[in-house]
Amino acid sequence: MTERAAVKAALKTQAVETPSWAYGNSGTRFKVFAQQGVPRTPQEKLDDAAKVHEFTGVAPTVALHIPWDKVDDYAALARHAEDRGLRLGAVNSNTFQDDDYRLGSVCHPDAAVRRKAVDHLLECVDIMDATGSTDLKLWFADGTNYPGQDDIRARQDRLAEALAEVYGRLGDDQRMLLEYKLFEPAFYTTDVPDWGTAYAHCLKLGPKAQVVVDTGHHAPGTNIEFIVATLLREGKLGGFDFNSRFYADDDLMVGAADPFQLFRIMYEVVRGGGLSGEVAFMLDQCHNVESKIPAILRSVMNVQEATAKALLVDRDALGAAQRTGDVLGANAVLMDAFSTDVRPLLREVREEMGLDPDPMAAYARSGWAEKIVAERVGGEQAGWGA
Amino acid sequence: MTERAAVKAALKTQAVETPSWAYGNSGTRFKVFAQQGVPRTPQEKLDDAAKVHEFTGVAPTVALHIPWDKVDDYAALARHAEDRGLRLGAVNSNTFQDDDYRLGSVCHPDAAVRRKAVDHLLECVDIMDATGSTDLKLWFADGTNYPGQDDIRARQDRLAEALAEVYGRLGDDQRMLLEYKLFEPAFYTTDVPDWGTAYAHCLKLGPKAQVVVDTGHHAPGTNIEFIVATLLREGKLGGFDFNSRFYADDDLMVGAADPFQLFRIMYEVVRGGGLSGEVAFMLDQCHNVESKIPAILRSVMNVQEATAKALLVDRDALGAAQRTGDVLGANAVLMDAFSTDVRPLLREVREEMGLDPDPMAAYARSGWAEKIVAERVGGEQAGWGA
Amino acid sequence: MTERAAVKAALKTQAVETPSWAYGNSGTRFKVFAQQGVPRTPQEKLDDAAKVHEFTGVAPTVALHIPWDKVDDYAALARHAEDRGLRLGAVNSNTFQDDDYRLGSVCHPDAAVRRKAVDHLLECVDIMDATGSTDLKLWFADGTNYPGQDDIRARQDRLAEALAEVYGRLGDDQRMLLEYKLFEPAFYTTDVPDWGTAYAHCLKLGPKAQVVVDTGHHAPGTNIEFIVATLLREGKLGGFDFNSRFYADDDLMVGAADPFQLFRIMYEVVRGGGLSGEVAFMLDQCHNVESKIPAILRSVMNVQEATAKALLVDRDALGAAQRTGDVLGANAVLMDAFSTDVRPLLREVREEMGLDPDPMAAYARSGWAEKIVAERVGGEQAGWGA
Amino acid sequence: MTERAAVKAALKTQAVETPSWAYGNSGTRFKVFAQQGVPRTPQEKLDDAAKVHEFTGVAPTVALHIPWDKVDDYAALARHAEDRGLRLGAVNSNTFQDDDYRLGSVCHPDAAVRRKAVDHLLECVDIMDATGSTDLKLWFADGTNYPGQDDIRARQDRLAEALAEVYGRLGDDQRMLLEYKLFEPAFYTTDVPDWGTAYAHCLKLGPKAQVVVDTGHHAPGTNIEFIVATLLREGKLGGFDFNSRFYADDDLMVGAADPFQLFRIMYEVVRGGGLSGEVAFMLDQCHNVESKIPAILRSVMNVQEATAKALLVDRDALGAAQRTGDVLGANAVLMDAFSTDVRPLLREVREEMGLDPDPMAAYARSGWAEKIVAERVGGEQAGWGA
Repeated sequence: MTERAAVKAALKTQAVETPSWAYGNSGTRFKVFAQQGVPRTPQEKLDDAAKVHEFTGVAPTVALHIPWDKVDDYAALARHAEDRGLRLGAVNSNTFQDDDYRLGSVCHPDAAVRRKAVDHLLECVDIMDATGSTDLKLWFADGTNYPGQDDIRARQDRLAEALAEVYGRLGDDQRMLLEYKLFEPAFYTTDVPDWGTAYAHCLKLGPKAQVVVDTGHHAPGTNIEFIVATLLREGKLGGFDFNSRFYADDDLMVGAADPFQLFRIMYEVVRGGGLSGEVAFMLDQCHNVESKIPAILRSVMNVQEATAKALLVDRDALGAAQRTGDVLGANAVLMDAFSTDVRPLLREVREEMGLDPDPMAAYARSGWAEKIVAERVGGEQAGWGA
Repeated sequence: MTERAAVKAALKTQAVETPSWAYGNSGTRFKVFAQQGVPRTPQEKLDDAAKVHEFTGVAPTVALHIPWDKVDDYAALARHAEDRGLRLGAVNSNTFQDDDYRLGSVCHPDAAVRRKAVDHLLECVDIMDATGSTDLKLWFADGTNYPGQDDIRARQDRLAEALAEVYGRLGDDQRMLLEYKLFEPAFYTTDVPDWGTAYAHCLKLGPKAQVVVDTGHHAPGTNIEFIVATLLREGKLGGFDFNSRFYADDDLMVGAADPFQLFRIMYEVVRGGGLSGEVAFMLDQCHNVESKIPAILRSVMNVQEATAKALLVDRDALGAAQRTGDVLGANAVLMDAFSTDVRPLLREVREEMGLDPDPMAAYARSGWAEKIVAERVGGEQAGWGA
Repeated sequence: MTERAAVKAALKTQAVETPSWAYGNSGTRFKVFAQQGVPRTPQEKLDDAAKVHEFTGVAPTVALHIPWDKVDDYAALARHAEDRGLRLGAVNSNTFQDDDYRLGSVCHPDAAVRRKAVDHLLECVDIMDATGSTDLKLWFADGTNYPGQDDIRARQDRLAEALAEVYGRLGDDQRMLLEYKLFEPAFYTTDVPDWGTAYAHCLKLGPKAQVVVDTGHHAPGTNIEFIVATLLREGKLGGFDFNSRFYADDDLMVGAADPFQLFRIMYEVVRGGGLSGEVAFMLDQCHNVESKIPAILRSVMNVQEATAKALLVDRDALGAAQRTGDVLGANAVLMDAFSTDVRPLLREVREEMGLDPDPMAAYARSGWAEKIVAERVGGEQAGWGA
Repeated sequence: MTERAAVKAALKTQAVETPSWAYGNSGTRFKVFAQQGVPRTPQEKLDDAAKVHEFTGVAPTVALHIPWDKVDDYAALARHAEDRGLRLGAVNSNTFQDDDYRLGSVCHPDAAVRRKAVDHLLECVDIMDATGSTDLKLWFADGTNYPGQDDIRARQDRLAEALAEVYGRLGDDQRMLLEYKLFEPAFYTTDVPDWGTAYAHCLKLGPKAQVVVDTGHHAPGTNIEFIVATLLREGKLGGFDFNSRFYADDDLMVGAADPFQLFRIMYEVVRGGGLSGEVAFMLDQCHNVESKIPAILRSVMNVQEATAKALLVDRDALGAAQRTGDVLGANAVLMDAFSTDVRPLLREVREEMGLDPDPMAAYARSGWAEKIVAERVGGEQAGWGA
C-alpha cells in the first residue's frame, strides 16, 4: 500500500490552473444566462480566482485568454495576481471571434487572414514574455461545414506553416500546447480533430510543442486514458483541459459526468510520472446554470479526489495481478482505490495546509458571493466574446 | 416501374416549409457571423422566403417563431405573405431565451415560471388563430446539466400538465407538434429526449398531438427511417424538421451530410403514405458560413431530389425480392433508384411548372442578393434571439 | 437521512437473478475461450448459481434459456434448484440460432418461419407452467442488414401479430418482458431497437406486457436512468438485464464500466418505487476472459453497492435543493451518497444475514473452483448455442 | 472537366483485392449461417475469387489469412491462382484464435505467448517469400476488458518490441501494414485503437511500415476522409480494408451504408495521388445473410462507382471555388460529381475491357453458383476459424 504520508504530500503540491473565462458568463448558442456579481475586468477575474486558491490551496495559477483579458500593462496584471497569491498561467489565443475568421484562421484559404491569425499568435507570445507565462495554448476553431468547402490537405499545409512560424518565436522556457477537438464550431472537418493530428504536428515542430488533452473533445467511446498513457510514453503530453461531458463538448464540471473515467485518467498520469512533471492541469469549463466560483471550487476538489484515489492504488498488488493474468484480481485492486471515500483524507490534507477542511462551506461563509453581487454593479460583465 | 408522369405530378405538389429564422443570422456558441443583406423584420424574412418559393415552386409556407416574429398585426403579416404567394405556416414557440428559463420552462420546479411558459404557449395559439396557422410546434430546451439537479420524474409530471392545458386550447383544425431532441442546451437530462417520450405524451393528449422528427436530434447510430416508419404506422408522424449533421445538432443543409439517409427517410414517407397526407415537411437549419437564401434553395432542391428518388423505387420489384428473401436483389432495387441522377427529371418538372430549370442560377441572375445588400442598411439584423 | 436500519433491511431483501448461460462459455465472433470446470448440463449451471446465492444471499433465482436449458423433466429441474435454495426465474426464448432464422423469426417474410418461432415462444410458456416461472423474456435478433432488404413496417405488423398470440397464451400470473436492442446481430434495422418501440407494443398488448432495459443496448449518449424513470412512471418497467459496456453490447460485468451510471439507475429505481415491486433485476453478461463464478459474485456485489448508495441518498435534502433551484447543492447531495464507501455497510449486512462479509474470499476458500475443475471432465461444456 | 478518356483509363487499371475469408462462412457471436457451395479449401476460395475477377476485371489479387489458408505448398497455391488469372496478395496474420491469446498476443503479459505470436508473424513473412506477396497485414485483437486488467503503457512497449523484430525480418520489397480498430474483441482498451497509435508505431519502425484504414474501425463521428488525406500527406497510407457499417464493425458490403462517405474517401485518395500509387485497396467484409460471390461482385462495383465519381470531380472548378471562399459553389462542384449516375460509364469501361457490362447478371447466367452448390458437397466449409 502506498504510504498515506506520501499520498498526502503529493496532494499538497498538486496544482490546478483555473481559466479566467470560467469566472465570466457563458452559455450555449441558445442563450447566455447572466449571473449577478460576475467580473467585469481581468482584475476582477483574478480576484475570484484568488478565492478559489485561498480555499483549496491548490489553484495557484490562472490561465488568460487573449483578447478577452487584454490589458495595457501585463506586468501590472501579473502584480495584481501576485498580490493575491496567484501567478498568471497559460496564455490562450483566440482566432475564432473576428468576422475574418468565418472560414478559418491559420488554415484560411486567404493568406491575409492567415497572416492576421499568426500575428495574433505572435502577440500572445509577446504577452507571455510580459506576464512570465511559459505556456502558449492553441486551440483552433478552424474547419469546414460542407464536403468540398476547402481542401483538407492544403489546410494541413497552411496549419503546419503557421505553427512553425510561431514555434520559432518561442523563448527557451516557453512551449506550445496544441489542443485537438473532434468538432464544433466546424461541423464537417476540423483541422486538428484528434490527438494523432496534434501529435504529428508537434513531433515535427520539436520538443517545445506538446499536446493538450481536453477531456470533452473526443468521439463517443474514445478511451481517453489510453491517449494519456500513450502521450506520456511519447513525452508529448503537455497538459489537460479538464471538464466533463455526457454528449459532446458539454464543458460541465470535471468529474461530474464520469468520476470513474477521471480516476482512470489520473491513474495513468500517476503511473506515467506525469503528476510531478511538466503536465499542466487546467480547467476549461462553462458554468451555465450553476454558480461560478462554487462550481470551480467543486471542480478543483473533484480533481483532488480523483488524484487521491489514483495515488491510493496499490501498484505492487496491481502489477502482481497483471503479470499473472488475474483479470478479476487486477480489476479489484483498481476498484478498491476507486471505492475508497477519500474525502476524510482530503480534509486532513487541508487542515495540515492550514485550510478549512470544507472549501465549499468556508467559501459560503466568507461573504465573498454577497460582496461581489453588491459591488460589481454597472459596467459590462465578462463573458464569451468579452 | 412507377410511371414517370405520376412521379412528376407528386413532385409538383410537394411542399417544403421554410423557417423564418433561417433567413436571419445564426452561429455557434463561439460566434455569430453576420451577413450582409440579412432581414431586419418579419416582413423582410417573408420577402426572402418568397424568392425561395418563386424559384423552386415548392416552398409555399413559412414557419414563424414567437417572439422573434412578433408583430402588432398578424393579419397584416399574413396578407404580406399572401401578396408574395406565400402562406404562414407553423408557429414555433420559444421558452428558452428569457432569464427565467435558466432551469427550464414547462418543467421548471417553480410553478410561476411554468405558468409564464404555458401562457406563452397559449399566446402562440392565439397567434395561430390570427394567422390561420394550423400547427403549433413545440420544442422545449428543458432539462438539467447535473445528476440530481432536479427530479426526472417530477419534471415529466409538470410537462404532462402543461401540454394538457395547451392541448385543451387548440381549435378543431389545429394540432400540436411535439419535437424531441437528445441534448443541447441541456447536457445531462433533456425532458423530451427521444421519440418514445414524445410519442407517449402525444398518445395521452389525443389525436391532435403528433411527433416531429428533427433529423439532427438523435443519438449516433439511430436509424431515423425506422422511427419514421413506426410513427407513420401509429398515425403519429406530424412532420419533419429537416437538416443534416455529421456530429450533433449541426443544423447543416438537409441532404448535405448523408444524402442516402435522406433518401431512405423519404422512401419510408412514400411507402407509409406520408407524402400527400398531413405530414409537414419543414426545414430547420442554420446557415452559419454560407449564403442564406442560396442555401435554402439548395436545401429545398435536396429534399426534391431525395423525394424523386424515393418515388422512383420500383416497389413491385422491391416487394417481390423482399418476399422471397433475396437480400441482394431487394437492396439492388433500392440502390437503383438512389443511383439514378434525378436532376434532369427535376429540371423537366420545373419547366412544366413554368420555372427556370436551375433555381440556383436563376436566383443568382435575379439581382435579389445585390438588392438586399444595398437596401437593408441600418436597423438590426434578425438573428437568433432577435 | 435515510435510516441505516431501513437501508440494511432493503439490502437484505434485494434479489438479483443470475442467468444460466453466464456460467457457460462465451466469447466474441472471433473466438470463444473455453474455461476449465464450466458446466455441462443445466443442473451443473444451477449448482454454480447456488454458490453465488450461498455467498451473497441475494441471488435466489436463475434465468433459463430455451433450448440451451432444455430438459425432459422441468419439475425435476425445479426441484434440483429448490434443493440448493434456488428457484427458477425468467424463461428466455431463443429465436436466433436455427438456420431458418437467417432473415428473422417472428418478423420473417415467410409465414412458416414465423409459425415456427411463435410455436417456440408458446413452448416457452409451457415450460413456465412446468417450472413455475412467471416471466417470459423475449429478445428478438430480428432485423435486416441492408437498406431495402425487407419492409420495415410490414415487419412491425408481423411482430405485433406474433406478440399478440403469445400474450394471449399467458396465464394469470405470468407476464411478457420485451427487450429492445439498438443493433447486433442485425446491422441496418433492428425490429425492436429502442424503448419506444418496446413500449408501444407493450401498451397495445396489455398490462401483462412490460419492457426490459438491458443496460448495454442503447445508442451512445443515451440517458438510461431517464428511460428507467419514464417506464416506472408509466408502470411499464418489467426488469433489467444488467451488464456494462464501454462501446456496444460488450456484456461486461455490471458496474465495471461506469459505476456512477449504475448508481444513477438504481437511484431512479428507488425513487420510482421499483426496488420492492415487481421489477426483475437480472444479470445478462458474458465472462469471456475472466473466471465465471467470481465474475458473477462480483457483479451481484456491484449491484448491491450501487443500491446501497442509492438508498443512502438524503431524499429530503435533495428535494429541498431541487425545489429551490440550487443546482450545486442538489448535485452535492447525490454525490455525497455516491462518494460514500458502502463496503463496510454491506459487510455488516452480510454478517447479519449469517454470511461471510467477503463473498469473493469465501468462495475462493470454499474449494468449489478446484472441485468443478476436477470433476467436470468429459462431456460438452455449456456455451452459447449449447 | 476531367477528360472522360482519362477517367476510363484510370478505372481500367484500378485493382481491388478480395479477401479469401469473405468467400467462407461468417457470422456474429450469435450465429454463423452456413451457405451452400461455400469453399472448403484455399484453392476453392481462389476459384471463387477468379470468378469475381473474371466478371469485373479489376479484382486481380486475393488476400490470404494464415492459418486459415495454410497449405503445404505455397508455390503451388500461387500457381493455382495464376492459372486462374490471379495473384496472391497480402498475407494476414492471426493472433487471436488460439487459447493462448485469451489475454493478448504480442502485448500479452507472458513473454512465452508473445514469443509464440511473433513467431507466427515471422512465419507469415516466410509465406510471403514463398507466395511473392509484398504486404504483411497486421491486425491485433489485443486489448483488455476491464480497467486495471493490464498495464496500458507496458503493453505498448511489448507491441513496439514485437513490431520491431518483425519489421527487421521484412525483405527489401516487403512492407508491414498496421491496422487499427476502436474495439472488439477487446472491450475496454485496444492496443492499436486509432490511426494515431498505428502512425506513431509505423513512424518509429521506418518507411516499410504503413497504416491500414479499415473503414469500419472508427468511433462514431470520425471523419475518415480526413485521416486518409492526412496519412497520404505523411506518406503513411498503406491501404484500405473496405467495408461499411451503420453501428460498429458491421463488415457490410462497402458502399452499402454510406455511399457518399465512400465517395469522399475516394476523392481524397484521388486528390492525394493515392489511386495509382502503392495504396492497397482491399475488401474485408462478412456476408452473413447474403450470397457471398454476388456480394463481393457488388462490393467491387461499389468501389468502382465511388472511384468514377471521385475522378469526375472538376478539380479546377473546385479549387477556384475553394480559393475564393465560395462555400456553396465548392460544395456544389463536389455534389455534382456525386449526383452523376456513373453506371453507364462503367458499363462502357467494361465493354472496352471485353467484359459483360453487367457483372451481376453475367455471373448469375454463368452457372457457377449452381455448379459449386452441386459439387462442393462433403468436407468442411471454410469459415471464421477454419
